[in-house]
Amino acid sequence: MLSPVDLYIEENQARFLDELLEFLRIPSISTLPEHKPDVARAAQFVADALKNAGVENVEIVPTAKHPLVYGDWLHAPGKPTVLCYGHYDVQPPDPLELWKSPPFEPALRDGNIYARGACDDKGQMYMHIKAFEALHRVSQGKLPVNVKFLIEGEEEIGGESISNYVPKHKDKLQAEVALVSDTELFADGLPTLCIGLRGLVYLEVEARGPARDLHSGMFGGAAPNAVFGLIELLAKAKDAAGRILIPGIYDDIVPPDPAEVESWQRLPFSEKEFLESGVGSTALTGEPDQSVLARLWARPTLEVHGIAGGFTGSGAKTVIPATAIAKVSFRLVPEQKPAKVLSLFRNWVSAHTPQGIQTEVRLLSAGPAIVVNPHHPAIQVAAKALSDKLQKPTVFTRGGGSIPIVGEFARELGIPTVLMGFGLPDDGLHSPNEKYRLSNYYLGIRTIAYFLDAYGKTR
Amino acid sequence: MLSPVDLYIEENQARFLDELLEFLRIPSISTLPEHKPDVARAAQFVADALKNAGVENVEIVPTAKHPLVYGDWLHAPGKPTVLCYGHYDVQPPDPLELWKSPPFEPALRDGNIYARGACDDKGQMYMHIKAFEALHRVSQGKLPVNVKFLIEGEEEIGGESISNYVPKHKDKLQAEVALVSDTELFADGLPTLCIGLRGLVYLEVEARGPARDLHSGMFGGAAPNAVFGLIELLAKAKDAAGRILIPGIYDDIVPPDPAEVESWQRLPFSEKEFLESGVGSTALTGEPDQSVLARLWARPTLEVHGIAGGFTGSGAKTVIPATAIAKVSFRLVPEQKPAKVLSLFRNWVSAHTPQGIQTEVRLLSAGPAIVVNPHHPAIQVAAKALSDKLQKPTVFTRGGGSIPIVGEFARELGIPTVLMGFGLPDDGLHSPNEKYRLSNYYLGIRTIAYFLDAYGKTR
Repeated sequence: MLSPVDLYIEENQARFLDELLEFLRIPSISTLPEHKPDVARAAQFVADALKNAGVENVEIVPTAKHPLVYGDWLHAPGKPTVLCYGHYDVQPPDPLELWKSPPFEPALRDGNIYARGACDDKGQMYMHIKAFEALHRVSQGKLPVNVKFLIEGEEEIGGESISNYVPKHKDKLQAEVALVSDTELFADGLPTLCIGLRGLVYLEVEARGPARDLHSGMFGGAAPNAVFGLIELLAKAKDAAGRILIPGIYDDIVPPDPAEVESWQRLPFSEKEFLESGVGSTALTGEPDQSVLARLWARPTLEVHGIAGGFTGSGAKTVIPATAIAKVSFRLVPEQKPAKVLSLFRNWVSAHTPQGIQTEVRLLSAGPAIVVNPHHPAIQVAAKALSDKLQKPTVFTRGGGSIPIVGEFARELGIPTVLMGFGLPDDGLHSPNEKYRLSNYYLGIRTIAYFLDAYGKTR
Repeated sequence: MLSPVDLYIEENQARFLDELLEFLRIPSISTLPEHKPDVARAAQFVADALKNAGVENVEIVPTAKHPLVYGDWLHAPGKPTVLCYGHYDVQPPDPLELWKSPPFEPALRDGNIYARGACDDKGQMYMHIKAFEALHRVSQGKLPVNVKFLIEGEEEIGGESISNYVPKHKDKLQAEVALVSDTELFADGLPTLCIGLRGLVYLEVEARGPARDLHSGMFGGAAPNAVFGLIELLAKAKDAAGRILIPGIYDDIVPPDPAEVESWQRLPFSEKEFLESGVGSTALTGEPDQSVLARLWARPTLEVHGIAGGFTGSGAKTVIPATAIAKVSFRLVPEQKPAKVLSLFRNWVSAHTPQGIQTEVRLLSAGPAIVVNPHHPAIQVAAKALSDKLQKPTVFTRGGGSIPIVGEFARELGIPTVLMGFGLPDDGLHSPNEKYRLSNYYLGIRTIAYFLDAYGKTR
């Protein structure tokens, strides 16, 4: 039998979808300066949605880059407070030509919403607002829980503004627990709580060779080549198996508890399916002495996200390039320190830069890994909410990605985070044809409403 | 005392310059499809210039890509015939922001003409036409030599059309010697004849990893990365000193004659100056057991001209790229065969492509190295023309660049080529701020007129 809250959600499905589609039409790409007005428009959309749902004290907080949106509802004295976090900014959609429908014209196909941000994180963040609305209406303004919302527009570019905001507004943001929906179910229909996330150090490496581009006929054989210098340098950072060769990089790692590792072996994970459907290649890479899940969740990585230098237009240009640039990141695991990793990498780059090449390493963003205690009451309530809605025991996993704000909530506010996400492994985050399962959107709204209600009633 | 031809050239300097500047204003970039009409306009300009100079039977020959321009003057029975070759197409001007004046708005500064193509090869090719004009006018149409012109618009993209044309028009193009001005003086004021050129095999290498761009948080540590795969592959192609590690690559090389190597040691070459003014870096690279000139003229190279893949915009995008591409070339020396080098490289790429990556090698252009016998009568006359005009003994050098047509003239027409160029080592071919010394433009016209006249009179 449906609860009154579930019934409200079912009756309002069509409107909840329309609102999300409208939200997804705003190309709020935080990394591209030309989209700054769209990012501002998305912040306004979020603020309006909060007010319409019954949230109070809604404000758009200007920052050096993109605004934060804050709101709260604090009329349940003696009851715990949940801080709902999400982000309204999205990744760039390129390569555009690979999208089957335009990234900012959401399309419904096969029970999915296809759009940039459908899952990461507009679709998931909007579930919080709709769950609050459902509880608020059905309880006629008498929720058993206090709720705060803090929603940012810089998650995809490092979240600098929220990092500055949180330490300066500790009282305003105080809560028992944070709630973040920016993760995924381990498998379709499998109730999943994520209790660990890798950290990130994201860098730009620039190589300079000759003072200007040179003719390779006249200088080839004697002049340093910035592109080759950068290739030569970065190739030395990993061995053929994928082990990182930067001295000290593995030193501070705390491996996961044996019980946790053992539980991963019971997850419905097929390496073959991961390779074929997830990755779509002929072979996996990475440390051969580690399981795939350990490589994804509990081991650091070094990745080159992009490289550019010299002539790459159509046809031939015989140039020795003067400069080249690469985007490089490390994923971090508990207890690796971002500052130490940065310093190890800088020293390694200095020591291994080829003759005739100058290199510069620029830090773009950094955040440590986090782990959450699965015995915390909020985690227990969240696990029960998921189990009840999906009629299966909840599994605890980790995520390989980074949500730096989770570490900041722990450090600055002293609170854990419930990572309750409803994405699916093939949702294509950051890729062309990103999607979000429509049924998971509604499932998420129901489960979050259940969690907020039940967690409030624990006190 | 000035000869009548020199006098004519001096009297017409201003007009000769104006005409060249008009030619340089045409952005005839052969590799960019959007400049096809400009390339056609440059061909028309050349045809008109030939007619105005007194050349007969001028025709614009359509091809699959860009037109050839042919013309001749054959009224000296019993006299030798010189085939003048040049190209009217130019390299792309990027990076545009490094030009002090726009690449297609020629500017005169410090005695130089700054423009894309000023030296390579519009400025040098146009000297042939003006030298012919001077001889034709001063001799009142009674030249002691027959002259043919064949000027192409695809030199910078591999010269496919002229390669197809020459073997089919052997009778029409028959001559005793070809004349090409697309090389440089070894030093300012030093009479130089180039008697060897490296060949070229120019390739595109594409790497594919996952089926689509992946989120590095969710897949990093296990999924192959196309950019890193390409980096890893290409870095293995050379050792730290610059020696090429592709098996067999050095097998067929015929080293230069010891006398030639010995003569290079007498050239006014300063490694320090080459490093500081030419290259503009902190160290040279390349095989340590070879002199710099040997590395530039008599040793093969492997160069990466450009690389692109993944995200390289501003900010951060945590993507594992699905594809990456690099432009790669080999410079070849006598007796390396382009087809064999291509096959060695293909085999090596297949053997060294990392797990989980697919690679494809595409050939964009190829041509062998060439050497010219310094005792040929035309070379001897050319050496005397240069010595007389510059009042110093002529030196014989090689060039590290490739002029594939020179090999084709040897193979198809059985004739040697006089490589008499008037560029300077710092002219910045293929670079921003390409220039041509104005006084060398006039010197070239005078010397070429002298050569044509004197070579005609050898019979």
